[in-house]
Amino acid sequence: MTSPQMLLAIQIANGYGAQPGAWRMPGVDPSSYTDMDQFVRYAQAAERGKIQLVFLADTPALDVDLEREAPHHAIDPLVVLTSMARGTERIGLVATSSTTLNEPFTIARQFKALDVVSHGRAGWNAVPTSHRAAAANYGMTLPARAEKYERAHEVVQVVQALWGSWERDAWVRDVAGKRFADMSKIRPIDLQGRHVASRGPLAIPPSEQGQPVVFQAGGGANGLELAARYASGVYANPFTIEEGRAHRTALRAAAERVGRDPDEVKLFAGFMPSIAPTRRAALDRRRRLDESVDLDQRVTYLGAMLGLHLAPGRLDEPLNARELAAVRPSPADPRSARALEVAREGWSLRDVLAHGVIDYHPVVPGTAADVADHMQEWFQAGACDGFSLAIDVYSDGIDAFVDQVVPLLQERGLFHRDYEEATLRGHLGAPAQYGLDPRLAGAARTSN
Amino acid sequence: MTSPQMLLAIQIANGYGAQPGAWRMPGVDPSSYTDMDQFVRYAQAAERGKIQLVFLADTPALDVDLEREAPHHAIDPLVVLTSMARGTERIGLVATSSTTLNEPFTIARQFKALDVVSHGRAGWNAVPTSHRAAAANYGMTLPARAEKYERAHEVVQVVQALWGSWERDAWVRDVAGKRFADMSKIRPIDLQGRHVASRGPLAIPPSEQGQPVVFQAGGGANGLELAARYASGVYANPFTIEEGRAHRTALRAAAERVGRDPDEVKLFAGFMPSIAPTRRAALDRRRRLDESVDLDQRVTYLGAMLGLHLAPGRLDEPLNARELAAVRPSPADPRSARALEVAREGWSLRDVLAHGVIDYHPVVPGTAADVADHMQEWFQAGACDGFSLAIDVYSDGIDAFVDQVVPLLQERGLFHRDYEEATLRGHLGAPAQYGLDPRLAGAARTSN
Repeated sequence: MTSPQMLLAIQIANGYGAQPGAWRMPGVDPSSYTDMDQFVRYAQAAERGKIQLVFLADTPALDVDLEREAPHHAIDPLVVLTSMARGTERIGLVATSSTTLNEPFTIARQFKALDVVSHGRAGWNAVPTSHRAAAANYGMTLPARAEKYERAHEVVQVVQALWGSWERDAWVRDVAGKRFADMSKIRPIDLQGRHVASRGPLAIPPSEQGQPVVFQAGGGANGLELAARYASGVYANPFTIEEGRAHRTALRAAAERVGRDPDEVKLFAGFMPSIAPTRRAALDRRRRLDESVDLDQRVTYLGAMLGLHLAPGRLDEPLNARELAAVRPSPADPRSARALEVAREGWSLRDVLAHGVIDYHPVVPGTAADVADHMQEWFQAGACDGFSLAIDVYSDGIDAFVDQVVPLLQERGLFHRDYEEATLRGHLGAPAQYGLDPRLAGAARTSN
Repeated sequence: MTSPQMLLAIQIANGYGAQPGAWRMPGVDPSSYTDMDQFVRYAQAAERGKIQLVFLADTPALDVDLEREAPHHAIDPLVVLTSMARGTERIGLVATSSTTLNEPFTIARQFKALDVVSHGRAGWNAVPTSHRAAAANYGMTLPARAEKYERAHEVVQVVQALWGSWERDAWVRDVAGKRFADMSKIRPIDLQGRHVASRGPLAIPPSEQGQPVVFQAGGGANGLELAARYASGVYANPFTIEEGRAHRTALRAAAERVGRDPDEVKLFAGFMPSIAPTRRAALDRRRRLDESVDLDQRVTYLGAMLGLHLAPGRLDEPLNARELAAVRPSPADPRSARALEVAREGWSLRDVLAHGVIDYHPVVPGTAADVADHMQEWFQAGACDGFSLAIDVYSDGIDAFVDQVVPLLQERGLFHRDYEEATLRGHLGAPAQYGLDPRLAGAARTSN
């Protein structure tokens, strides 16, 4: 019996990196946003590191001030993942597609097409959209939350039913017998819900993993229920080990309640390493990245987290003794304890911010060993089943992670040394499933 | 001043060929349907022949008896074209996406993503869907024809407006100046029609050709109007030179009525060559392909075209003198004159059918010179601006066309010897357009 090992996903967003200033860093091609050669190179580097999957989050809206930042998402997830599929052999390929904005037939077709061309490596992150501008791009106003989740259940069920509309052995290809397929094994699904419907069948045979793996990333009780029923992987954003454990425990319990083995659902915790030969060099790397952001605004925000009024213009001073005595970390922000911990070490405010204390994932700026230590601590504390890595700058950051951190994790027995299987389902240890999960038949939101 | 030269498109359907029996032919991998290596090889062969574009027609429905035939369409046009984009440099990449079933934001995003990753080689064939099963896959019943075309105008306008939502020079990428883009040149479109709406902007900068080229393939007066307003290329299915001339004349007149130069819209006539060293060998190739179809049924249909009652079971006999005296070619089927011409040559009914007289495009089974002669005749008669080639079996048929017919067309001055430009717009001689066509502002179906 070997100890459990962590699973790793690499988030690939806009082609530059997880930090807003990534597009301007030395060695980065500022045209990477549209350059599939770069995206393929990133996926190949991740595959060299035996990373289980790349993940493209997506919101179909331009929700950023492009004067200083690159767009937050890739030009199109399907185009990017197809390009990666053509340039890699083993790594899983997962992207978000909204259950609120898309029709299930389109999702089913496009993700299953990706699945067959990648030989069983596709995954779909099924999430409702909460973004007003994205809905407006589709001529919609956002439905109420309950409505959105009701539709999400229907969409996942219709998509999975379409995926299963050819039986596993329907595609005969018998040249001598002049028989292309066994039509008795290819059937319409005829599902009708309150929000969506589809007749089927899909015109796509099974892939090497049968059908794509479902992921989930929504929050709250609704998100938990969606994940518990359908997902093999969940992208979560805990800021502390405690948050991670609480989420993972709730997820496993929810899966158990619907009759699944809790090990069928893996929680990936978002994590943002910045790797350099020393902690100082890692902070300098992040300071360079921070040149693209408004630090005075961040200082004000940091002050609010610590219960202090911090004036702009004092970026290069640390908190003084009077301030440290007066801090009242905000209980509303789970990041405030870590912010205080770093501030107490005496760093300048610029360096406190360079530690990523107000970033959207936990950040470790440091050596490969610092990064591996953090991951080990979280993983062994049961805060997650693995990590969804938001690499600061892809062009050198993926290589640094793969060449420096991965070997440490492997030496410590925390990460596999090679892919054990050929498919994404195999990488995740996700059980075989084809079509709808028969254990969930009682929970059907759609009917014939 | 050089003489006009024809344009060539190659239709790529299911991975096998334009004939139902293609999947079973010698040398054909019966798994090609899902194998992107094959599709890329076809596109590379077409590119070697300086073919202007590959075209994937699409209907999102499984509308064929798979016991004997392969599906009519590719697993997913975007996945296939993206794969081709990664394996080719110059050839245009065009696919159908339904204006009835899809939201304009999805079409705009996916085709423009393909356009930037292919460096300006994408085209969108904008057609309403008339297929009941396709609508049912989207939980819809088909709208009335007028309604469908009204929506089609709106969808094309919204898509083109989204494509133009970044000005040509908006993507600054000024590393030293810390400026990613000029936000004063990236704007919402805020278009609202009766059927669709979108706010925008799209998060994709211009491609090397600005934005994808629009094609059209619908029939009737509605299709003509749609093509006249927006299309740079039209896929048409004339069976005779007269039909081709009539369609092309009507198309050019319609374009002129909306203020466009008629040369801006090119008509591609569907054409199906079967190339072999002799006509007899070409007929034998098609006879082998016909082994997958019900020839008795086709004989019955042939009889109806000729005004004869033809009993099954006499496939290897020609029409006799009494029958030839009694023929009354059906005026309702434009193919009947050609069928009679072939029957009068004394071929057996099996060979008459092997001539493709009841196929969905004109067929020439013969030598490369026979094929080139046919194309020359049609082109010089003004029946088309070029051809959309339905190659019987892709695995050797594209090579045969490229290596044998293309050189003849080039020697005769009918086809270019190399790509003159790098983009699809350049290949077609289509005028620059970015965003909506300002000449059509008066015809707007959508408003702010």
